[in-house]
Amino acid sequence: MFQVKQEEIIKVPDRVKRALKELLGEHKVLDDEMDRLLYSYDATRIKVLPELVVIPETKEEVQKLVKICYEEGIPVTPRGAGSGYTGGSLPVKGGVVVSFEKMDKILEIDEDNAVAKVQPGVITYRLQQAVEKKGLFYPPDPASYKFCTLGGNVAENAGGPRCVKYGVTREYVMELETVIHTGEFIHTGRPTLKDVAGYDITRLLIGSEGTLGLFTEITLKLIPKPKAAKTVKAIFQDIAAVGKTVKDIFKAGIQPSALEFMDKLAINAVEDFGHFGLPRDAEVLLLIEVDGHPKALEDEIKEVAKICEMNGAKVEIAQTEAEANKLWEARRALSPAVSKLGRVKINEDIVFPRSYLPEALPKLREIGKKYNLKMVNFGHIGDGNVHANFMISGLDEDELKRVEKAVEEVFDLAISYGGSITGEHGVGITKAPFMKKQFRPEEIDIMKGIKNVFDPKNLINPGKMGL
Amino acid sequence: MFQVKQEEIIKVPDRVKRALKELLGEHKVLDDEMDRLLYSYDATRIKVLPELVVIPETKEEVQKLVKICYEEGIPVTPRGAGSGYTGGSLPVKGGVVVSFEKMDKILEIDEDNAVAKVQPGVITYRLQQAVEKKGLFYPPDPASYKFCTLGGNVAENAGGPRCVKYGVTREYVMELETVIHTGEFIHTGRPTLKDVAGYDITRLLIGSEGTLGLFTEITLKLIPKPKAAKTVKAIFQDIAAVGKTVKDIFKAGIQPSALEFMDKLAINAVEDFGHFGLPRDAEVLLLIEVDGHPKALEDEIKEVAKICEMNGAKVEIAQTEAEANKLWEARRALSPAVSKLGRVKINEDIVFPRSYLPEALPKLREIGKKYNLKMVNFGHIGDGNVHANFMISGLDEDELKRVEKAVEEVFDLAISYGGSITGEHGVGITKAPFMKKQFRPEEIDIMKGIKNVFDPKNLINPGKMGL
Repeated sequence: MFQVKQEEIIKVPDRVKRALKELLGEHKVLDDEMDRLLYSYDATRIKVLPELVVIPETKEEVQKLVKICYEEGIPVTPRGAGSGYTGGSLPVKGGVVVSFEKMDKILEIDEDNAVAKVQPGVITYRLQQAVEKKGLFYPPDPASYKFCTLGGNVAENAGGPRCVKYGVTREYVMELETVIHTGEFIHTGRPTLKDVAGYDITRLLIGSEGTLGLFTEITLKLIPKPKAAKTVKAIFQDIAAVGKTVKDIFKAGIQPSALEFMDKLAINAVEDFGHFGLPRDAEVLLLIEVDGHPKALEDEIKEVAKICEMNGAKVEIAQTEAEANKLWEARRALSPAVSKLGRVKINEDIVFPRSYLPEALPKLREIGKKYNLKMVNFGHIGDGNVHANFMISGLDEDELKRVEKAVEEVFDLAISYGGSITGEHGVGITKAPFMKKQFRPEEIDIMKGIKNVFDPKNLINPGKMGL
Repeated sequence: MFQVKQEEIIKVPDRVKRALKELLGEHKVLDDEMDRLLYSYDATRIKVLPELVVIPETKEEVQKLVKICYEEGIPVTPRGAGSGYTGGSLPVKGGVVVSFEKMDKILEIDEDNAVAKVQPGVITYRLQQAVEKKGLFYPPDPASYKFCTLGGNVAENAGGPRCVKYGVTREYVMELETVIHTGEFIHTGRPTLKDVAGYDITRLLIGSEGTLGLFTEITLKLIPKPKAAKTVKAIFQDIAAVGKTVKDIFKAGIQPSALEFMDKLAINAVEDFGHFGLPRDAEVLLLIEVDGHPKALEDEIKEVAKICEMNGAKVEIAQTEAEANKLWEARRALSPAVSKLGRVKINEDIVFPRSYLPEALPKLREIGKKYNLKMVNFGHIGDGNVHANFMISGLDEDELKRVEKAVEEVFDLAISYGGSITGEHGVGITKAPFMKKQFRPEEIDIMKGIKNVFDPKNLINPGKMGL
């Protein structure tokens, strides 16, 4: 388990605190321990108390604070909503946490070009609601979409159920304005569908977990809102049949807009939590959504249902929007529901090439059994992204040791199939020790070289990604 | 106009030539001037004779040749089909040209995961044919798709007409194997739809124009082949109405799979060339394709036709596949047809945010008039990517001066609307002087820093992108 090294914590001298207060105003600089506590956690439940919290309201304030901190050798850690699963927003080397909560304006929705410009603190769902009113659509939908921020989404290259059809956050970022270590802005990308001038710094910044600079403006691509959607619920007793079903759906030329699975423990956790009417005795439940033109949809959803049935599933097509919504509510309730199964949830988001799922999923389950751990598996089976959750008390030394070993085996399993240690959550601090499983030294060296170009003093969100 | 500086040309010493011949075999190393001449040009018609040409047959040979050349201080310039429009494959600092013509194997088409693995020398069209036989689809379709290579496509992040719906090459590259300056491989990316471990080196390499390393294997994402497609031909007399039509189509929630335009000069050039039956007196012709589910298509193509008519166009929906194919043949004939209008074609591929097209297109035409140049405009209007072509003799000093000024004004116009100096062709040598129009010094510095991480001696395709 991750431990902060106290000797590596960089304090913020009073001189710098005064300078920041003068620069931004007293109320934007939080020094009081009670205030700072509110910025000391994320979804990992690891706590690291910031030495100081700064809450800029303009991009020029971000420039100024980065310039001062960098010159003074103070680490700067950007923070969105603190909903990350890998500790990306925790100030593990001390210094200043920069919260973007006040930079939460939707600056522009340009309907003609289908582009939105936002500040990094805008909540994902708020943008989605705003653009849908205009017949447009911003697809990326991480589970935390009702409270996570777009700045955090870009930093982590966030995914979600819809990404199986629509792609991840990366596919929707057109331009970034970023404050680099000197306090200068860099503008990368263009608000156009095509642009190949220079190296693709925009996509280098996406998923860089806030370690290269601080985003101050984000320009996002929007697409037309799908005209309709239909959902199928399919109940399986055989996990191998689930894998085959997924393959068959894609082979039929259908691109579902969501293809989610939950195992028996997950189904039962959700039922205990909210009584959604899911079948408690099912081995696996698949929820499949198809969206698009209503006439195409009608055909495609029937074909999906047929494919599920041919693979032995009991199938129901949701007949009304309300019925479909209830199914998706059950899916969204998974995270809080599963959390009730243990005091601490160790949530890993590994990825497999999807054809290996029939083979890999039973092996994944075996790992839980081998270490005698409560393990709940669910996730985005359409893109091979599995959330493997170990539910533990967090209080038992032996249990902690077993879970550490189990997590390592989970990563080894993903890598053995050519998959990834993380599909959506990033590396942060919790997966940093496992970077060497996925990358060789020469690959890590290039990443370190790039980190050094952007951050020669190693002060921009330091201590992350094993770099 | 670009001129090679003879004093910067690095010769290949006999010692290195011998070593390369020993390493690879005599027949893979071309030293004879007549042989080398075949590798001295690209679509810019600028000629730079390579000092030596090496034709590796395996990725291990690429490793070895890069290692020797790098240690000896010899530039290495990778070359696909030499179909680029900006000089990316020209060895402007001398040294060795590495032709990938023999590394042209499709290594795997994995139908279950909808993934293809190829060597860099595979011709784009060959892969497309191979995957379409299996019901799969590789969308990027640069005009040169029948002879350009996938390695070149990745290096330049190639586009094409379909990209308005399906995105550019970048969206289809999952994994890259790249030989870096040390002769080591780096493997980046995963054959999965999601993967956020580490910095996105894959996308940094895409569009890097061969300046960071030499690709040896490319893993590409495939999608289901669209079930059907329909094409509309719309004839306009008013260029502003064309811009509005494009906006209206997207606003109706329709994502055309191609949305191409040609101006009067382009139409007439095509008619002179091939008699396709296009209307010679039209100001602008739009070709619009919609693809997808047959039932959805029927509705959408009618809606597209209606939108065109409401904007004053004369509209025809192609009734048969043969009819549609003839229209797209006319579009594909544009490049050779336009070439007949002058000995030299200066082809710039600027991009505008699409809402500015009604305003920008007439201004573009004015630039041609101002400098008394024959100017032909066509391109991918759906994504704002305009090919502005100046047709010149190339022999007249005064004409050359005028075209230089006109090109600069074309770039200024694109930048003034927040667009890009290049949508598909890259920067290479021809656009290198204009990088400073799109980027500020601190942005260029970061690119230079990255170049230095990958290529500390500046020997991997040196002299490109203004870096």
